[in-house]
Amino acid sequence: MSFQTTATIASFGGKLLKLKHAASSTKCEMGLNLYLPPQAYKTGAKIPVLFYLSGLTCTGDNCSEKGFFQHAASKKGIAVVYPDTSPRLNIQGEDDAYDFGSGAGFYVDATKEPWNKGYNMYTYITEELPKSLFSAFDQLDSSRVSITGHSMGGHGALTLFLKNPGKYKSVSAFAPIANPINCAWGQKAFKGYFGEDQQEKWKAHDATELVKQWKGPLEILIDVGTGDNFYKQGQLLPENFLKAAKEGGNDKDINLRMQPDYDHSYYFIASFADEHVEYAAKYLGV
Amino acid sequence: MSFQTTATIASFGGKLLKLKHAASSTKCEMGLNLYLPPQAYKTGAKIPVLFYLSGLTCTGDNCSEKGFFQHAASKKGIAVVYPDTSPRLNIQGEDDAYDFGSGAGFYVDATKEPWNKGYNMYTYITEELPKSLFSAFDQLDSSRVSITGHSMGGHGALTLFLKNPGKYKSVSAFAPIANPINCAWGQKAFKGYFGEDQQEKWKAHDATELVKQWKGPLEILIDVGTGDNFYKQGQLLPENFLKAAKEGGNDKDINLRMQPDYDHSYYFIASFADEHVEYAAKYLGV
Repeated sequence: MSFQTTATIASFGGKLLKLKHAASSTKCEMGLNLYLPPQAYKTGAKIPVLFYLSGLTCTGDNCSEKGFFQHAASKKGIAVVYPDTSPRLNIQGEDDAYDFGSGAGFYVDATKEPWNKGYNMYTYITEELPKSLFSAFDQLDSSRVSITGHSMGGHGALTLFLKNPGKYKSVSAFAPIANPINCAWGQKAFKGYFGEDQQEKWKAHDATELVKQWKGPLEILIDVGTGDNFYKQGQLLPENFLKAAKEGGNDKDINLRMQPDYDHSYYFIASFADEHVEYAAKYLGV
Repeated sequence: MSFQTTATIASFGGKLLKLKHAASSTKCEMGLNLYLPPQAYKTGAKIPVLFYLSGLTCTGDNCSEKGFFQHAASKKGIAVVYPDTSPRLNIQGEDDAYDFGSGAGFYVDATKEPWNKGYNMYTYITEELPKSLFSAFDQLDSSRVSITGHSMGGHGALTLFLKNPGKYKSVSAFAPIANPINCAWGQKAFKGYFGEDQQEKWKAHDATELVKQWKGPLEILIDVGTGDNFYKQGQLLPENFLKAAKEGGNDKDINLRMQPDYDHSYYFIASFADEHVEYAAKYLGV
């Protein structure tokens, strides 16, 4: 449960900690980064936490270096957690494709062999990792947690929020894979991790299906670049998500912003990181 | 003289252009990035320019992705130029070391064989590149140019500013190699590019030697991290620079800030990029 700190890096007045720990849900050692803003170092501090879920091929390092969440997190006094995107288990074929296996855990608990041996990113992100962090870092406030993410991690942020009402104070997403059961990336991943059970298991992890079931008000900030090639290729499908929310009468406070010319890269994320942190800050009470 | 644009990337409301051009001073095709803030796209715009000189091993890409200069440049309406750090000439041995040859041009014009075949980064950065940019991009104001840089590029920024009074409106530096003739990196580079002529050629490109000759007021912002291993190893020697300026009576407005715990990385640069852009902005009249 406890973490080993392999590096402590000064960043925007706070510290970025490179951590690793033995995770039981994913059956391996998991790496992550934790940004502690300057406010975390005051005596008796209790600061809120923003989980950032990364996209395909990434680790927690990419956004720590190129996403610039620390800039606004430092001002607002929010800790940012940058987890890895999958276990690293040396399963045969794990590293063969960029969009399945290592770096592509899709924030689900796999049910199909051999991936059910530890590809349990849903349990890891919703349960084990926060529990471990709140146990190890007294200054983190377990009652104030928000979530965001990019691409596959945008899918993760949306689905984890929708599947766990009340667990997260807010959700936002950058270029999320918003309807995975209807795009190539999602179909490949869900077939691999769940098999053919499209009616039950696939739909249980599809944001567009989940939003249909939502009860009560629903506020979400989503940014997608109009120059994003994956958007153009139909991998993201944010319109499907919005349409499904509308059918359930839940679209009123979903702010889908189509950002002119922006692509799928960290240049895009960095450009709107301040706004996503400030969005979360409102709900986190800072 | 003209540029080829290989990519146009939306960033903080403006565009990052990936450019390449055939450079006569360095005898090869040179790559660079140019950030045009939103203000550059207004009719009749004339916006100031900040040159950012990178450190050892970098190209113009590192700081574009990880330095966070676009954030403040977008607000202030400043174009940022991210040049490469050397020619790429396929000279034998060019790629053998991280601190000499490719990626390590040190912003000097080499006089020693074989490096004098094109290792002319001083002429490239002070003459050819700005001339080419001002010719190709009407919206750039050639009368308002500032310079900054990191490590080897901090040396470049300081020396180019000190050798060309009036050419740059302001100078700042992150962890500069401030006294290269007295550190291992500088001695290796200057011996390689100039030979043994320490009295003349070496001193002509050493910021600490140059500052002794400066006449009139001198304002400089320098940030160095106290956790910077290269500072601890004596590669940067900012105190020597400050002492030399003091001996010449020019230290009053040199603001050397020792930043607690910061290292030599882009985490450090990003943390203070806003302040360096805002510092330049004052002198650039925006």
